[in-house]
Amino acid sequence: MEDRFKMSILLDLYGTLLTDKQRDILNLYYNDDLSLAEIAENMETSRQAVFDIIKRCHKILLEYESRLGLMQKEISRENSKGELLGMLDGLAEGSRSGEISEIRSFVIENL
Amino acid sequence: MEDRFKMSILLDLYGTLLTDKQRDILNLYYNDDLSLAEIAENMETSRQAVFDIIKRCHKILLEYESRLGLMQKEISRENSKGELLGMLDGLAEGSRSGEISEIRSFVIENL
Repeated sequence: MEDRFKMSILLDLYGTLLTDKQRDILNLYYNDDLSLAEIAENMETSRQAVFDIIKRCHKILLEYESRLGLMQKEISRENSKGELLGMLDGLAEGSRSGEISEIRSFVIENL
Repeated sequence: MEDRFKMSILLDLYGTLLTDKQRDILNLYYNDDLSLAEIAENMETSRQAVFDIIKRCHKILLEYESRLGLMQKEISRENSKGELLGMLDGLAEGSRSGEISEIRSFVIENL
């Protein structure tokens, strides 16, 4: 996964564990695509300070993911959801009870 | 929700964010139902030290839940899952397309 895209997802998932300032800076960098210099001006601080915060939070977010794995679970859930929708599409074409029981088992095991 | 039960769930959800020692102690207390004195003996430390760790981690776990809300999301997902299973049961009795389309929308919005 492209790093910027991944960090933006991790920020969505774990942003509430950062300080407001850290979250603001990462938002400007990963979601609004501002440069370090622009963020520094925006936050009235130095480019180096912004760089350090981004670098540190990058590591923090990866650490949270390695411990809680919320992104990985989200991906797996999205896959299950897609699979379930495919099964429902199949059901809509043919006819009933065997398939329905299969869907039930799938939902119980995966969602 | 009964406090001990809630803490046991929070420990499942956020235990990887604690140190090994903190997690071990909370496991003995909330899941294995050992007394403070028993845990102290087990871990070769004082009853007071065990009490302090449990008290501190109790606060930490509640703080994680207030920031990430994983337990709340889990409850909400379980409710959705129950509702979906109910819909599938209904579908199995009657007949098709309107209901199936309803299930699809439900899955897309909720799971």
